[in-house]
Amino acid sequence: MDYAMHDLGDLRLQGGATIRGCQMAYKTFGVLNPAKDNVIVYPTWYSAQHYENEWLVGPGMALDPDKYFIIIPNMLGNGLSSSPSTTPEPYNGPRFPHVTATDNVRAQHRLVTETFGIERVRLVVGWSMGALQTFHWGALYPDMVERIAPFCGSAKCSRHNFVFLEGVKAALQADAAFAGGWYRSKPETGLRAMARVYAGWGFSQAFYREELDLKALGYSSLEDFLVAFWEGFFLPKDANNLLAMLWTWQHGDISANELYGGDLRRALGAIKAKAFVMPGQTDLYFPPEDSEFEVAHMPNARLIPIPSIWGHFAGGPGTNPVDVAFIDARLKELLDS
Amino acid sequence: MDYAMHDLGDLRLQGGATIRGCQMAYKTFGVLNPAKDNVIVYPTWYSAQHYENEWLVGPGMALDPDKYFIIIPNMLGNGLSSSPSTTPEPYNGPRFPHVTATDNVRAQHRLVTETFGIERVRLVVGWSMGALQTFHWGALYPDMVERIAPFCGSAKCSRHNFVFLEGVKAALQADAAFAGGWYRSKPETGLRAMARVYAGWGFSQAFYREELDLKALGYSSLEDFLVAFWEGFFLPKDANNLLAMLWTWQHGDISANELYGGDLRRALGAIKAKAFVMPGQTDLYFPPEDSEFEVAHMPNARLIPIPSIWGHFAGGPGTNPVDVAFIDARLKELLDS
Repeated sequence: MDYAMHDLGDLRLQGGATIRGCQMAYKTFGVLNPAKDNVIVYPTWYSAQHYENEWLVGPGMALDPDKYFIIIPNMLGNGLSSSPSTTPEPYNGPRFPHVTATDNVRAQHRLVTETFGIERVRLVVGWSMGALQTFHWGALYPDMVERIAPFCGSAKCSRHNFVFLEGVKAALQADAAFAGGWYRSKPETGLRAMARVYAGWGFSQAFYREELDLKALGYSSLEDFLVAFWEGFFLPKDANNLLAMLWTWQHGDISANELYGGDLRRALGAIKAKAFVMPGQTDLYFPPEDSEFEVAHMPNARLIPIPSIWGHFAGGPGTNPVDVAFIDARLKELLDS
Repeated sequence: MDYAMHDLGDLRLQGGATIRGCQMAYKTFGVLNPAKDNVIVYPTWYSAQHYENEWLVGPGMALDPDKYFIIIPNMLGNGLSSSPSTTPEPYNGPRFPHVTATDNVRAQHRLVTETFGIERVRLVVGWSMGALQTFHWGALYPDMVERIAPFCGSAKCSRHNFVFLEGVKAALQADAAFAGGWYRSKPETGLRAMARVYAGWGFSQAFYREELDLKALGYSSLEDFLVAFWEGFFLPKDANNLLAMLWTWQHGDISANELYGGDLRRALGAIKAKAFVMPGQTDLYFPPEDSEFEVAHMPNARLIPIPSIWGHFAGGPGTNPVDVAFIDARLKELLDS
């Protein structure tokens, strides 16, 4: 096991349920310095576990374990932290309660403060749903977070993004083997259908036009890309876990809590952190226009589009080295400022 | 019955199969003049029947029945022309053969020449898959077609568009009730899933951001839009028909025939018609960049993006009056030139 567990005890959720004996899995890199001022928090993305975040961590990179203490907390529902697949009866499987991004980040805050006694965070950074959690850190703990770098994500799930996810969800649930979440064996047809729906959204029109699936990623045909990359990506994952995280995504909103009462502009305005907001120029479900709105309402934010035709995958998970270099350079700039 | 049938006899298809006793349903508007030089051909779009094309036809509009003889041929597979749902054994249901857009347009050419003795076509016009057929008219009958106006469509299905359709198809087929096309009753779950997948693609991010589903179309909530508009659209349709037309779409290519041998640039270059190519500015599956490529390789074409945030629905079916007025004005300009 290359990670640790933080016992959150009985975690009361925004929605009213309690996850009893809630566990948060996390991995750290580097050493917490005596001043405890070298901390980076780096939440995970949809369906990912901490090791799928590691492409942005390494000696010489912005997230350098020789300089920083980097904490990767696993999102609830991701199969390592408490999830439909790991929770005992009666909250197992499709009965796993709805968890918000606010619930996640408040739990992460407990991990950071209770386990390590950390009071300041130098940077919170994340891709996609990791960006959603990053925005939450900025809005929920404005006096604790010095910098944020959300990339290819948003502070609130847009209506279009919500609809895209409805399609993903419907494809998975159309499989009778899914059985309302009470499947005995993997709903393979639904997972494969979900993967094919996702395929058109993940990369941009230009990515496919330029045949980067073949020329850059080395797949042998478009169908090979759909099977080997996309179906291969979703098949190993638990369907209820995927749906739990999908709910978290769809209902992500930094203002959906008692601090901001649903006022997104006010929540954005409360983020004191210096922010580099980095949308992918051709991201189909987190279009740059949504990031523009966010930056316009944040007091200390800069909009830095990632100039890439890799769509949502401009932001991760290390798929395109050119984009990784771009993001890494911006993070260095932000960390040094 | 508001339409007529053309008996195509035994229609031999590019793929090798024969549809015996093949029927093409069509509707006409206006009167063919003695010189037979007032003809407009207006093919149908994905899943549509001729009456769903009529929003662009009317007195005072560009497609004015008082001036023009307008023929709307129903695409094979659409439930009126020969289709999986209408064809007797053994070519019924999922055994209905693969039909290309070239097959369709050659059959339409027979309708136009055999039934009406028409030798010149003033305009071919169509939305989406109707645009695909419009491009085919230009490339297959360059000496017969004077003008073409394909909007929100392409001369060849792009790789990204193909992937988008793979998602739509997978969602429908994930329903066990689909049973490989041998369903006894409607695969309702699959049709609803397909509709939800389509919902994110049909309209743009900006359409949803501006809440035009509520403010312009009058739905009472986003979920109401997904159920009433999207699921309501697909549920009445036959699943095998939808898949037959989807195959036609995915394999659409004006150069995939003995005339051009797969050379798209040559096929585009062979289109003599004066062409107004009109992509929707925010169309997610027929992006303007693909139209730019086409226009660059056509000798007599103009690129006219439709300035709209209605995504693919900028082009039809009469959903947004502002876009209808824009398209109609351009068609008048083209017809008068």
